[in-house]
Amino acid sequence: MAITQGDTNGVGYELIFKTFSSPEMLELCTPIVYGSPKIATYHRKALELEDGNFSIVGSAADVKDGRLNLLTCFDDEVKVELGMAAKESAEAGIKALERAMADAAAGAYDVLVMCPLQKNEELKFPGQQTFVEQRLGKKAQLIVMNSRQRMAFMTADVALKDVAASITKEGIVQQTTELFNTIRRDLRVLNPRVAVLALNPAANGKEETDIITPALAALEESQVKAFGPYAAEPFFAQRQYDAFDGVLAMYHDQGMAPLHTLAADDCIRLLGGLDLVITMPDESPLFEQAGKGRTDEGAFRQAVYAAIDIWRNRQTYDEPLANPLPKLYHEKRDESEKVRFSIPKKHENSIKEKL
Amino acid sequence: MAITQGDTNGVGYELIFKTFSSPEMLELCTPIVYGSPKIATYHRKALELEDGNFSIVGSAADVKDGRLNLLTCFDDEVKVELGMAAKESAEAGIKALERAMADAAAGAYDVLVMCPLQKNEELKFPGQQTFVEQRLGKKAQLIVMNSRQRMAFMTADVALKDVAASITKEGIVQQTTELFNTIRRDLRVLNPRVAVLALNPAANGKEETDIITPALAALEESQVKAFGPYAAEPFFAQRQYDAFDGVLAMYHDQGMAPLHTLAADDCIRLLGGLDLVITMPDESPLFEQAGKGRTDEGAFRQAVYAAIDIWRNRQTYDEPLANPLPKLYHEKRDESEKVRFSIPKKHENSIKEKL
Repeated sequence: MAITQGDTNGVGYELIFKTFSSPEMLELCTPIVYGSPKIATYHRKALELEDGNFSIVGSAADVKDGRLNLLTCFDDEVKVELGMAAKESAEAGIKALERAMADAAAGAYDVLVMCPLQKNEELKFPGQQTFVEQRLGKKAQLIVMNSRQRMAFMTADVALKDVAASITKEGIVQQTTELFNTIRRDLRVLNPRVAVLALNPAANGKEETDIITPALAALEESQVKAFGPYAAEPFFAQRQYDAFDGVLAMYHDQGMAPLHTLAADDCIRLLGGLDLVITMPDESPLFEQAGKGRTDEGAFRQAVYAAIDIWRNRQTYDEPLANPLPKLYHEKRDESEKVRFSIPKKHENSIKEKL
Repeated sequence: MAITQGDTNGVGYELIFKTFSSPEMLELCTPIVYGSPKIATYHRKALELEDGNFSIVGSAADVKDGRLNLLTCFDDEVKVELGMAAKESAEAGIKALERAMADAAAGAYDVLVMCPLQKNEELKFPGQQTFVEQRLGKKAQLIVMNSRQRMAFMTADVALKDVAASITKEGIVQQTTELFNTIRRDLRVLNPRVAVLALNPAANGKEETDIITPALAALEESQVKAFGPYAAEPFFAQRQYDAFDGVLAMYHDQGMAPLHTLAADDCIRLLGGLDLVITMPDESPLFEQAGKGRTDEGAFRQAVYAAIDIWRNRQTYDEPLANPLPKLYHEKRDESEKVRFSIPKKHENSIKEKL
């Protein structure tokens, strides 16, 4: 498991040290922290941790099981100013992520958990999700989740005035299908039910009629179990979400405000739809708490658990599909009622496509 | 206290009977239920209530203290179909409200609490708030509140695509000032602090810069303690609302979804800015629960308490302003340091204006 250090003036190392202070955690996975031993040591001292031992390694090949491995990503001196959002500390975080991405391409690890690192205009760092998408050459779907809800968003980082115009039938079909597939494969819900929220408060506007409802009809045809459109307020107020495995919100505040109102500190983010399993705690670098030892590592720990679970789920999901038995076709018109053991040409092709 | 029956197929009478089953409630106020004895009796039987006695009166002049008075608003037979949203039951609700409004004009009662009644296009009933505004000839400000929050809305019943265009500097100044004044006079918070939410998720869009921030500057000049713009998600997730006496949300879902997520069943609605004190539970007629006796009357009870409190608060707020002592002006330039007991002309005028 690769773990990136995040912004080195934030709480990243605190989350890592606290989570891996339990020896059981090292039985679940072999962590490789992409960072800097000097900075890690600085944090360990600031936090006055008794535990917090780690083995310094130069590359992912040298990693040892049962240890917290720290992979040195750079040798430069980086000043740590706990609690300050600084160019230097963001840069250190980016370097670690850059190295982790290079190692991902080489297949050096199975899953990636990222510590918080904000977007930075000065450094032209577009945020972790976009950065990862650029490196992997594929769009991801952000899914914010805790034990009760999994939520994706039709629009992200869109000014409210542009939200309505950004909602399309194709977009809803695509986002809902992606969420459905991720919940099925990554979270192993056999037949997930996805709720699609309405755009307008009473769910009776033009967008519901012209866009969302037709999208739901299209989803039904393609066997994606999607329902809605649900007015957001009663959906959350009356806990209608309990009846669903996933939720597609139309815009940020609509979904995120109620979700975080219910559970501010146990949410994680999953970058769905990528070949590499990537999770992170749904938190900022929490600069104001850095170095004080007061940060709850619960969300980071959940991100670690989720990454492991998802990786395992994918194995069990993919396994039976890897070597399918040929289907036995019973030709009804054939009066001999003889079972044919050869796969008809057209079905053979469709099975290949599915793989 | 006037109480309108609301939709007669809904839970209105259940709320009334349950609330006034405690004798203490009849010490706090003298309730006059605007409705129909036949319908009330039907509900009482359906609910199998042992209590639920009431005195039938023909007009507000005949009302008796210490009793649940039921004022007969119409003699027609109205079929009760519990749990059905019907034209007939909505009509019965409207008639009761109509009569209550006529009595309000005659000063027959001090405060009004309304049971739930939905808008009805067939009957051209625009909803209780608009109906009351039309009858009283004045716009009200809807304030949704519970023990922790008081929330008003910059836009109401606006399609999401039109929300951004509906937000104006003048509108924010006016809504915030109204909310501030209502909290000060009706809820007796000496120096209320009002939070104004941002329109965009990160509070860094064009509307924040061009509209909301200038509105806040104008409010500061007029001595209204308003702060913001606050991004909605952290405002609710991190309980920033605890630091404020009131909140102005930009649109329905932004404020209502988190508010109801936190507290779905203890919210009431206050129609602020009217001469008549009007409150109601923040609920629909809850048709699905009608006649089953399972409805929690907590929100209705709070609406009753709030109406009484507000009426009293207004007395104590207005009293010292009604007969002000003349101010004593100490003329600094007057070297004799003699206190002048006469009010200078220009100040006398400005005091009158304030009243």
